[in-house]
Amino acid sequence: MSRVVIGVDLGGTNLRTSLISSEGVILDKHKEATRASEGWGKIVNRLIQNIERQQEIAIQKGMSVVAVGVGAPGVIRVDKGIVVKSPNFPDWNNLPLKHELEKVIRLPVMIENDANAAALGEQWRGAGMGIGSMILLTLGTGVGGGIVLDKKIWHGADGMAGELGHMTIIPDGRKCGCGNSGCLEMYASARGIVQSYEDALGVSTTGMQSAITSAQVYQEARNGNARAVKVMNDMGCILGIGIANLINIFNPEMVVIGGGVREAWPLFIDFTRMEIKKRAFEVPAARTHIVPSKLGDDAGTMGAAATALQGAGWN
Amino acid sequence: MSRVVIGVDLGGTNLRTSLISSEGVILDKHKEATRASEGWGKIVNRLIQNIERQQEIAIQKGMSVVAVGVGAPGVIRVDKGIVVKSPNFPDWNNLPLKHELEKVIRLPVMIENDANAAALGEQWRGAGMGIGSMILLTLGTGVGGGIVLDKKIWHGADGMAGELGHMTIIPDGRKCGCGNSGCLEMYASARGIVQSYEDALGVSTTGMQSAITSAQVYQEARNGNARAVKVMNDMGCILGIGIANLINIFNPEMVVIGGGVREAWPLFIDFTRMEIKKRAFEVPAARTHIVPSKLGDDAGTMGAAATALQGAGWN
Repeated sequence: MSRVVIGVDLGGTNLRTSLISSEGVILDKHKEATRASEGWGKIVNRLIQNIERQQEIAIQKGMSVVAVGVGAPGVIRVDKGIVVKSPNFPDWNNLPLKHELEKVIRLPVMIENDANAAALGEQWRGAGMGIGSMILLTLGTGVGGGIVLDKKIWHGADGMAGELGHMTIIPDGRKCGCGNSGCLEMYASARGIVQSYEDALGVSTTGMQSAITSAQVYQEARNGNARAVKVMNDMGCILGIGIANLINIFNPEMVVIGGGVREAWPLFIDFTRMEIKKRAFEVPAARTHIVPSKLGDDAGTMGAAATALQGAGWN
Repeated sequence: MSRVVIGVDLGGTNLRTSLISSEGVILDKHKEATRASEGWGKIVNRLIQNIERQQEIAIQKGMSVVAVGVGAPGVIRVDKGIVVKSPNFPDWNNLPLKHELEKVIRLPVMIENDANAAALGEQWRGAGMGIGSMILLTLGTGVGGGIVLDKKIWHGADGMAGELGHMTIIPDGRKCGCGNSGCLEMYASARGIVQSYEDALGVSTTGMQSAITSAQVYQEARNGNARAVKVMNDMGCILGIGIANLINIFNPEMVVIGGGVREAWPLFIDFTRMEIKKRAFEVPAARTHIVPSKLGDDAGTMGAAATALQGAGWN
């Protein structure tokens, strides 16, 4: 009987659950709304239902599920399978998610941070296949990061390593939600891009919902709007400063850029590369492949599956 | 017969050679001038003489040397034992140092970058004893770095990881010799401190040998000279931005600060800690011990010895 795993990507918006072979082939996938506001009890129940559904599908296919991996946003104690806290789930305080799932599912469950899971997914079956050292930057609403060294996630002493969106780029720059000023996230995220465009227009939406979206800024730039073009070029430069730092620090084989901002790739990447060339050491800069993510929305479940396989000692 | 190793710290100024037990006790040490300008042939011969002298001392003590480790400045191919290039030894281009030494010494020789060796030394028998993840910053003429993860040096794809002095702190700041602008090294090194003091005085020595030394700046600050005090405070803040980045990236257990600037510790460390508190995530910031190096001038030979032991499969 063929052995498979289940990878879960528990996002603030979507809950994705995939049945994945030990070779990294997605055999079935399901997506539904997370409904984070319903509280942890209901969400955990929904997680269990989704996992059980994939278990049934596996049985129908004549396969046996050997482990489950879950990627969740926030601070995760990977060793204990605890969600310490999560920006998307305010009532999750030291939630023993591994334990809650294992007592019903009766399979080994591994919990991982969502950005780390996405990084591992890209390394296992995405842009970084065969690559040992890889840094993932997800440019979404915020900027997340995952560090893969020797094909494994570097978690750090508290499981909080890889907060790459909170490198200081402009010491006296924009105030970030994390308490710092001038974080990469404040310029290279979708939100940061919208703010830069609003700054360029001379409008301010501080404290209000912005009237424009990042997708509109990209479209304006594609249409040749000089302000929007400059916003995207400047964003590319700031991203380049951050990546140049990561290159000088890690000398990695690859940097993968994921998240929704990746859609605007041609609008910023030349400026990113130019800045890297200007700022990073020549040999490691030439070595590092800077590429867009390949798995897109499947990176999280794929990485959760890889986590499950690593946890089960299979990978 | 007790087994020992020899650790060599080949600096631009001094050549240090120590006989070190497998428990990390220095049994004998010797220091002499490197005389870098004499060219690689003479320096390699002197290296061999120093190693052979320690071998003889070991024999007199009834001990047997089982391996040699050498820390050298510059880009090192650790796997092949080649010095690719070195700022201190302009005629060392792809020098197969391991091979050159092994053919005479007839012992396994491991080559490591000097900052990495110092980091490993501090982790093995210095400030970071028992610590798994540790970042070393050496604030000397320049700023060097070494990254210890899971008790091993992270070398990166080309052996060039850990160039922590070349993180960008001030994107449009001082022009650095590496080609970048605003590198940590331009502010937190002895040279950077002198430049900041000259800037504060309104004198410029660009292209000239500076008339003042970093030690004089520290002394002025200790004497209460307001300009010198401010220079040291500002240097502390900039160092804090760099360390906050490293904390958000690595979530390490410890950051060790070595190099000559460490002598001025009380003049900058409060500002460094304040900046870290302001900029890094709370949990990893509270976790990270920020400490001065403990081994001082012995860090390099101690780490070279650790490299030799790791290479020989003993550690």
